[in-house]
Amino acid sequence: MKHLLLLSFSLLMTLHLSAQHPYPPVGKVQMQKLNSTILNTERDYAIYLPKSYTTDTLRQFPVLYLLHGLYGNHKDWSERGHVADVANQVFDSGMADEMIIVMPDAGTDWYGYFNMKGWEYERFFFEEFMPAIEKRFRIKGDKAHRAIAGLSMGGGGTTAYAQKHPDLFASAYAMSALMALPEFGRAPSTDFKMQELNQSVTANSCIDHVIKADEAGKAALRSVRWFVDCGDDDFLFDVNLDFYRAMIKAHIPCQLRVRDGGHTWEYWHSALYLALPWVSNGFGK
Amino acid sequence: MKHLLLLSFSLLMTLHLSAQHPYPPVGKVQMQKLNSTILNTERDYAIYLPKSYTTDTLRQFPVLYLLHGLYGNHKDWSERGHVADVANQVFDSGMADEMIIVMPDAGTDWYGYFNMKGWEYERFFFEEFMPAIEKRFRIKGDKAHRAIAGLSMGGGGTTAYAQKHPDLFASAYAMSALMALPEFGRAPSTDFKMQELNQSVTANSCIDHVIKADEAGKAALRSVRWFVDCGDDDFLFDVNLDFYRAMIKAHIPCQLRVRDGGHTWEYWHSALYLALPWVSNGFGK
Amino acid sequence: MKHLLLLSFSLLMTLHLSAQHPYPPVGKVQMQKLNSTILNTERDYAIYLPKSYTTDTLRQFPVLYLLHGLYGNHKDWSERGHVADVANQVFDSGMADEMIIVMPDAGTDWYGYFNMKGWEYERFFFEEFMPAIEKRFRIKGDKAHRAIAGLSMGGGGTTAYAQKHPDLFASAYAMSALMALPEFGRAPSTDFKMQELNQSVTANSCIDHVIKADEAGKAALRSVRWFVDCGDDDFLFDVNLDFYRAMIKAHIPCQLRVRDGGHTWEYWHSALYLALPWVSNGFGK
Amino acid sequence: MKHLLLLSFSLLMTLHLSAQHPYPPVGKVQMQKLNSTILNTERDYAIYLPKSYTTDTLRQFPVLYLLHGLYGNHKDWSERGHVADVANQVFDSGMADEMIIVMPDAGTDWYGYFNMKGWEYERFFFEEFMPAIEKRFRIKGDKAHRAIAGLSMGGGGTTAYAQKHPDLFASAYAMSALMALPEFGRAPSTDFKMQELNQSVTANSCIDHVIKADEAGKAALRSVRWFVDCGDDDFLFDVNLDFYRAMIKAHIPCQLRVRDGGHTWEYWHSALYLALPWVSNGFGK
Repeated sequence: MKHLLLLSFSLLMTLHLSAQHPYPPVGKVQMQKLNSTILNTERDYAIYLPKSYTTDTLRQFPVLYLLHGLYGNHKDWSERGHVADVANQVFDSGMADEMIIVMPDAGTDWYGYFNMKGWEYERFFFEEFMPAIEKRFRIKGDKAHRAIAGLSMGGGGTTAYAQKHPDLFASAYAMSALMALPEFGRAPSTDFKMQELNQSVTANSCIDHVIKADEAGKAALRSVRWFVDCGDDDFLFDVNLDFYRAMIKAHIPCQLRVRDGGHTWEYWHSALYLALPWVSNGFGK
Repeated sequence: MKHLLLLSFSLLMTLHLSAQHPYPPVGKVQMQKLNSTILNTERDYAIYLPKSYTTDTLRQFPVLYLLHGLYGNHKDWSERGHVADVANQVFDSGMADEMIIVMPDAGTDWYGYFNMKGWEYERFFFEEFMPAIEKRFRIKGDKAHRAIAGLSMGGGGTTAYAQKHPDLFASAYAMSALMALPEFGRAPSTDFKMQELNQSVTANSCIDHVIKADEAGKAALRSVRWFVDCGDDDFLFDVNLDFYRAMIKAHIPCQLRVRDGGHTWEYWHSALYLALPWVSNGFGK
Repeated sequence: MKHLLLLSFSLLMTLHLSAQHPYPPVGKVQMQKLNSTILNTERDYAIYLPKSYTTDTLRQFPVLYLLHGLYGNHKDWSERGHVADVANQVFDSGMADEMIIVMPDAGTDWYGYFNMKGWEYERFFFEEFMPAIEKRFRIKGDKAHRAIAGLSMGGGGTTAYAQKHPDLFASAYAMSALMALPEFGRAPSTDFKMQELNQSVTANSCIDHVIKADEAGKAALRSVRWFVDCGDDDFLFDVNLDFYRAMIKAHIPCQLRVRDGGHTWEYWHSALYLALPWVSNGFGK
Repeated sequence: MKHLLLLSFSLLMTLHLSAQHPYPPVGKVQMQKLNSTILNTERDYAIYLPKSYTTDTLRQFPVLYLLHGLYGNHKDWSERGHVADVANQVFDSGMADEMIIVMPDAGTDWYGYFNMKGWEYERFFFEEFMPAIEKRFRIKGDKAHRAIAGLSMGGGGTTAYAQKHPDLFASAYAMSALMALPEFGRAPSTDFKMQELNQSVTANSCIDHVIKADEAGKAALRSVRWFVDCGDDDFLFDVNLDFYRAMIKAHIPCQLRVRDGGHTWEYWHSALYLALPWVSNGFGK
């Protein structure tokens, strides 16, 4: 009885809301799975579908790939990043356009977004995951309507993926990114998977990529919009700044923000309020 | 000699900037004039042309009409609103798309955006000014790429213009708007022009327009994106809130922000940082 | 082995952080209990102790009481409001001073911050809870160093408590506050506890309190700093605005912010970034 | 007549405002002069006195010294920085405490905040200007209630002054600061005064000061609160980052923000909204 009445009170509020906005659908995150031949396993992912996805069933949407960090998984951005709450608010207010947000899992079993011995995650991402997702859901699927973002290890993945595939992404937004292996992280490890991760981060150094780029490479990089967002107390601050300086030196336009904070979810959560409008404004160009 | 050297120091800085961004053109405000048959006089206006206007000479741009307040003129938004500085920064950062910003003069000789005895400004605006401007400059010139914004008396003009011409504007952003004549402003005046202004504001009450709208009228209003921005210390706070409540009651989506401040240029200047991305995000829909 | 090495990587990061800030203690939330004679039960509460609480063991701190909403409890502000993360960041950056944050439970068994038949929560709060807490912890314990804030039902509690005890609180920050029972919430209920809550909210209407205040009452209210923070999509928007207008009419200074959002944790979480500096700046006056 | 009536309209608004806030005094900037023996001339300065300075004639206030940039003077912060408008708003909202803001002129005749041949400005500042100002006005005049801030050349002055006199300043907030002479600014100059400036900036390098500090020096620097604020497009970005890295390496706590923008008044004006609350929160400790 009590619950019925509590419900009825909630219901009243809902009805009131409905009076303002009839039939309010809402963007939501779903948990899904995809079978991978390359990785020889089933991989989890989370996907946010905006409110119009269900009301406008013919419409195709831009897409943002949103990557988690080390020791995380595909649930992080919704459970601690509150991505659906931020996205719903930002889209409703008209500060950004609705988009689909795809959050893969690169943290269970192994970790890392690159190819390693026995774990070719990068090949999986580009050959299996992205094509499958963009078929399964109404995604526009061209460079002009595809963006990538991520935090820490996922910020490194974001940057490296867009560096190697500038033809695929309109924008790349890196948060507290592992742009290269910092000095203090180079201790030898006897854990094979961690060794592999460390080697792959070094082999995919985003800083070296810029420094070594030839003119054609730089021109290709200029076709992507870049954003680096890193807190003043972040232990990856130095590699982020080195990356930014390399970009400026190479005359590749790049935004930089150093806001208050460290390597924390408060930082990444608040970054969404910048990232969603900024990638949205880059779609369609 | 001294000046030469000062110049050379400035030059060094400029060269350094040029190294980062070769040949940096920059968006600028120009002062222009237009002859009006309806008003039987020449009218001033200011126009901001974004940096790509000069570098990409075939491109057409969206347009924002930006209206000044009582006792002001077409120079206010650039001289105190620093509109070019804000626009250049917001466009460069990728948070909004380049647009042309047109700032007419409704403050010299007479004041007000409506038709009055001997001063048919509204007719001038829609029949002469807007068509002429959109021919003179490379402006896209459709509803999907036209927005209007303004402060105080110009916020009332913004709202009333978009209410009467929902087919012409994609977005309307009203700052500290004179949505209706407030109680305390209804003192009789022996100044003919002020009398006319007061009567025109009452006759064009934005609040009454919403309250009296029939279903077709409400549907038309829903085709415009609305934003009301008014400080908590503004003496026009009440009429802004009455307008917002009328909109919500009529189920016409409308954004509202009450930020810190009064009826001041600090408020309107900072409003540009919200208004430009928000109207930009509404273009092309 | 694997965990050991993961640990060792984390450890490296920690050591790196330690190199920047030797011995980094950090503010934390604890869950505690207090026995109540008035309520004839043990009551839960959460308490945030800032980093200096453990390093400077003679220092006394200002206190903020932070109240949850309907159907919530003392854990909400830490679990979904991330209060420790926000507080640590804001205090570290120097934008606010360290304070103790106390989060009582007014949601288990019953709900509501007022006295009801069989549940005298308000009496418990002022006669048992507050005195006990301020003895148990190093709290300064005077009006000049005590503030209150809360969301929804807790925003109503915040405002009503400070209205009835202006001698106890320096500042009151109300978020999305249930300032009075809104029209749509007045449906009769057969749930006794909900009936009691509704009656208590009506009996403690924050709006009526201001309207009915005599000159001495208004003068007392002016000794408190007031802040009303409510989203433009909040279903309690109207009662918040009615409260603000009553305050302005009574010449009682009051801040108002209407930011983007509804009755959501995104709103309340982000409100902390305003509330903590603002109450901090009001301590000691 | 017209003007009378316009006035009467304005008057109505003013009366309305007065109804809300009886007798609204307001903080204002005054232009003043001080005779200098050291510089053998009369020096201009601007001073902002907050609203309570005139209503509470016994009260003493904290002080912020606010320095202009190269080719500027004491009027810049009020004329383009709109310092009084920002200060009045921030103090009224309760986000910061009222303070006196002193803006000296280091730009007329010569330029620079350091001692040069024939222009001992630094000696003037500490031996004549600061003591005289703190006697002339009701300024508390201790380290705990004194802060310094400035832009570009004045940001370098801010940092260097606080480095050499950590016993005098509670906080130092540097905007787009000339922390050292950047590479591209080291061209030889035949202008004697510019030569002197360049040499003085090099001799007073804020970066070298940190690097060369011994343990006692570092301990003294830790008694000041530091804030570095520099845009991502600023041509002085590199020297600001070098300074920040030197501070972190020396374990001297320092805030850093890299916001959107270049070496512009938009940047410095918006910096005031951060700087005033932050220096305010540092007073009295």
